[in-house]
Amino acid sequence: MSGGRTVQFVTAAGESRRVAAPADATLLDAARLAHVEMDATCGGRGRCRSCRVKVMAGEIPPPTLQDTLQLGHDEVHERFRLACQTRVISDCTVMAMPPKAESGYQILAGDVDLTEDSRLHLDSGVAKRLVAAKAPVGEHHQTSDLDEILACLPADTDRRLALDVLRKVPGALRKDKGRLTVTTFNSEVIDIEAGDTTALAYGMAFDIGTTSIVGTLMDLATGEQLAAVGGLNPQAQYGGDLMSRIAFVQFDESKLVTLRAKILGGINDFIKEACAAAGVSAENVYKIVVVGNTCMHHIFLGIDVTYVGLAPYAPAVRDLLVYPARELPLKAAPNAKVCMLPIVAGFVGADTMACVLATRIYESEEIRALVDIGTNGEVVMGSREKLYACSAPAGPALEGAQIRHGMRGAIGAIEKVAIGEDVACSVIGDAPAVGICGSGLIDACAKMLDARIIDANGLLRREGSPPLVPALQSRIVQGEGGRQFVLVRKGEAGRDHDISITQADIRQLQLAKSAIYSGIMMLRDVMGIADEQIRELMLCGGFGNYISIESSVKIRLLPPLPVERITYMGNAAAIGAQMALLSETERLRAFELAQQIEHVALAARPEFQAIFVEGMNFTGTPFDAEERGKPRRGRDAAVRTG
Amino acid sequence: MSGGRTVQFVTAAGESRRVAAPADATLLDAARLAHVEMDATCGGRGRCRSCRVKVMAGEIPPPTLQDTLQLGHDEVHERFRLACQTRVISDCTVMAMPPKAESGYQILAGDVDLTEDSRLHLDSGVAKRLVAAKAPVGEHHQTSDLDEILACLPADTDRRLALDVLRKVPGALRKDKGRLTVTTFNSEVIDIEAGDTTALAYGMAFDIGTTSIVGTLMDLATGEQLAAVGGLNPQAQYGGDLMSRIAFVQFDESKLVTLRAKILGGINDFIKEACAAAGVSAENVYKIVVVGNTCMHHIFLGIDVTYVGLAPYAPAVRDLLVYPARELPLKAAPNAKVCMLPIVAGFVGADTMACVLATRIYESEEIRALVDIGTNGEVVMGSREKLYACSAPAGPALEGAQIRHGMRGAIGAIEKVAIGEDVACSVIGDAPAVGICGSGLIDACAKMLDARIIDANGLLRREGSPPLVPALQSRIVQGEGGRQFVLVRKGEAGRDHDISITQADIRQLQLAKSAIYSGIMMLRDVMGIADEQIRELMLCGGFGNYISIESSVKIRLLPPLPVERITYMGNAAAIGAQMALLSETERLRAFELAQQIEHVALAARPEFQAIFVEGMNFTGTPFDAEERGKPRRGRDAAVRTG
Repeated sequence: MSGGRTVQFVTAAGESRRVAAPADATLLDAARLAHVEMDATCGGRGRCRSCRVKVMAGEIPPPTLQDTLQLGHDEVHERFRLACQTRVISDCTVMAMPPKAESGYQILAGDVDLTEDSRLHLDSGVAKRLVAAKAPVGEHHQTSDLDEILACLPADTDRRLALDVLRKVPGALRKDKGRLTVTTFNSEVIDIEAGDTTALAYGMAFDIGTTSIVGTLMDLATGEQLAAVGGLNPQAQYGGDLMSRIAFVQFDESKLVTLRAKILGGINDFIKEACAAAGVSAENVYKIVVVGNTCMHHIFLGIDVTYVGLAPYAPAVRDLLVYPARELPLKAAPNAKVCMLPIVAGFVGADTMACVLATRIYESEEIRALVDIGTNGEVVMGSREKLYACSAPAGPALEGAQIRHGMRGAIGAIEKVAIGEDVACSVIGDAPAVGICGSGLIDACAKMLDARIIDANGLLRREGSPPLVPALQSRIVQGEGGRQFVLVRKGEAGRDHDISITQADIRQLQLAKSAIYSGIMMLRDVMGIADEQIRELMLCGGFGNYISIESSVKIRLLPPLPVERITYMGNAAAIGAQMALLSETERLRAFELAQQIEHVALAARPEFQAIFVEGMNFTGTPFDAEERGKPRRGRDAAVRTG
Repeated sequence: MSGGRTVQFVTAAGESRRVAAPADATLLDAARLAHVEMDATCGGRGRCRSCRVKVMAGEIPPPTLQDTLQLGHDEVHERFRLACQTRVISDCTVMAMPPKAESGYQILAGDVDLTEDSRLHLDSGVAKRLVAAKAPVGEHHQTSDLDEILACLPADTDRRLALDVLRKVPGALRKDKGRLTVTTFNSEVIDIEAGDTTALAYGMAFDIGTTSIVGTLMDLATGEQLAAVGGLNPQAQYGGDLMSRIAFVQFDESKLVTLRAKILGGINDFIKEACAAAGVSAENVYKIVVVGNTCMHHIFLGIDVTYVGLAPYAPAVRDLLVYPARELPLKAAPNAKVCMLPIVAGFVGADTMACVLATRIYESEEIRALVDIGTNGEVVMGSREKLYACSAPAGPALEGAQIRHGMRGAIGAIEKVAIGEDVACSVIGDAPAVGICGSGLIDACAKMLDARIIDANGLLRREGSPPLVPALQSRIVQGEGGRQFVLVRKGEAGRDHDISITQADIRQLQLAKSAIYSGIMMLRDVMGIADEQIRELMLCGGFGNYISIESSVKIRLLPPLPVERITYMGNAAAIGAQMALLSETERLRAFELAQQIEHVALAARPEFQAIFVEGMNFTGTPFDAEERGKPRRGRDAAVRTG
């Protein structure tokens, strides 16, 4: 029971019980351990509301799509959750069976009035109908097989069938005495199968990141998540970041084909894996929503990204595209609809649109911002009045690349650093340290700043400055890679070299964090608002999960908001893709929003350069000012143009 | 100058000139030889009306599509023709420059008012537009490449591009400084090319017969016929007639694939051949209209024909189908629209619909009939009030199959027979006789009937009957294949065997001709009309070109109408396909008509059996009646039910 947390359950009636929850336990598991009465009518599959709880205190994971589906956006924002979907990640206090009239078993379906609450409407567009058709009989008939099937379908059904579906008509009509299942996507017939297969309607949502891919298999009728898959983007061998990926294919069509084959192969493997895990057939996957940045989006479709990589970075297409799986090809139902979310601008892609959907920032009365931190940091800011978006080229430093001892956030990566009399590192997997990941770098720099090992300009304490306590001072060394601060010493746990942060590493971090920070500042300035008018800053994306919010504010990766206004939204791009998978309302909304969001091109703003340079600094005092009594360069001197 | 004919030109002013026209000459060639003044503004390509003539006397070939295009249905029916399109096939009298106000050079285009005349409206649906688009410029742009192109197109243009067209967008937009040509089919973008290719818009029309294929390459902007190709259907090795073709694939999907590959390969070869002949690129072929019987139609699309071959012979689909060329695949522009004309019923297919279009029978005030003679004989009868259709299973005898010395109508085939004191045969290509084709068989039987070599029951004169003149009597022999009449004797022109017509051959012909005849009679009966109410009987199809109308009436293949009411319409299925190629109005009309035509299922009519048996007879007296004084069985005793 390593990693156990204490959960305290309270009821509205005032009862209270405590239990130690094992690692990986859900709140439902914990409730059962504690013998707290809690229904799970659907069997803990996120398909009903019977295990609804409110987390009164303690850290809480971001809502899953099931939380949002069953409870609605408002409730998850108020820390309501489905106990079956919520992992225990800290000591917490949970109210079991919090009062609310409409709680209780309720499968969501088309008859739920969306105006009543903010729950996601289940309308995937995919419908399966069992019909009893008859093969034409009697010599005087003057109908075709297709006529007989269409006569059993709604009048607005599109008569134009894809050729491969049409080919299935004569056989399917006669195999099971005319009992057949017709699958439609909106008004289009996309499959015809003999017999009753109405229970088998699945979909997948994919977030194709430059580095990694996340896929979710869902039951389109219930919204249940059946399997989650993911892994590295197999294109990574052709360049770790976006611009190197673009450079690889630029002006060379055959290389585009190479990259496209990689991503299609990867996605097809994930479809296979997810279907195998859930015990379903890929032939019954009828809708696939794909999000990703513009480059991933275009390469996935086989569209030249040469010009996406050249100013003014225009995408080839921004529309809400839909293609049949067989055309890509993806190995699902041949006419499964592969739906791409729309693009706002070259570097504000479909993944950002998915974040917009997932956060519902477009509904907010107050001004909010969402930040998706990656090699490009996308920022969306605004309210239901108007949304602005920009993309900040952070580079790969936050993913551990171009950092001397950098690595991805995997086992062996230093992810947290404490600096008191000496340095203590927290390593992912409690393993011997191998390197430092992006979140570790942020945390290390924040703590080094607090300990005055680096100053506001990011300079490592120089020789000749007043010395630190000996243990720390001795960690500032001149070695291979220049002046550096040693986090883990050679010899510790059998290490054959130091793990340190070099002056150059700090510069890389400064460039990266300033890009993100300047993006946020730029939108703030374009909107003409003050920091404190930002009601909430929502961190999206895998990276946001791991960083310390305090440290991020400290190093000015994030603006100086009260920490409670900075929330972590989970992998919002993946959740947005899932929302568009389960709801055509959401998918179509994405297109409307993409048309309305105003793109702010950072590089084209004359004032951006100054903001960026200023954003390179950390908070605190530069050593040179401190030491020489000069006025400090810093935030107060920031150029403000609005 | 073998095969020369005399053409007499007259003018409205009363002048007259005669000239001997060489074989294969057109009326325009003849006019030039005769120094008759005749304009040919378009250069004799059928693209204008300046060489319009009226054929006052003499045989006249069926109108080409160019005739109909330029002159309209009414004028071609009144024997007006384009001199450049009309071959001299008999001695004739031709009025040059007949009066009519609107004659003269006029390229037809969208602004021609169809209500003014009955000319074909040139509206292929394919449009090419040269646009001057600009790649997105300036960092503040928020458009995509596609947005920039669509901004140059009509507002109703469909934004949904096929994936392969979308892939062309970034390159095409930048190759020639934004000058690019967008090809649309109706509102759909089907191609994008850099530079100006607006002059290059072609289409092909195909009539896929069970035996042969006819293809025509046309300029979609002008209607000009650029090349004509054709040949045997390469599926023929898997069965000569329809039912054996169906039997081959029935319940065996792999054989359907085999037949489909054959026909696709054949069509692709014809596309290549036609484009090479005309010196155009298949990449600029944007619309392909395909007609054929239901079996050919389904196999071409890869649709199982198992049930088309089983009662009640229902087609899988009757709709007006359109698929992109790449899906079949046909080697034209990848998104060229392959348009299938609709189907009326299992054995009244898209080829019949093309004949309906070409003959404009649906506009007729009086009752007309069209008959497409083949292994299945399709008959359509009616007027603008109502049309009826049926299909009569004639079998392959009329194509020379299952006939002892039968052959297709190729060089060496006996096509005409004269019987006086002895027999004289006319052979295609004036070559030594090799066999007898369908039209020869009809002619021979008619002449044998006249010469009383056979009687009304089709019986060859028996031994013991009063003898004929010795030359003829000696040709009735008992040999291999039974009792037979020798047309060409062994030894003539070095022949090593007789060419004869056996009693069994005559039976085959009787079955075939009765099927066609009974189909016509059945529709006549369903309509409750008398023979004489049929204003015109229009023969369609290649076969109709060669048969003697008199002989066909004589043997009761055709009903006893005055011969001037029986007209030959040429390959109406091919012409109908060309009309649908050049005119969306015609293509869409085909669908409306297919819905309205009433299919009469012959086999399901209890009275059909009697009509068929009666139809086996020829006109004239049976030998047995003649010889034994019994009342003759024949037409007067025909069962009439309405």
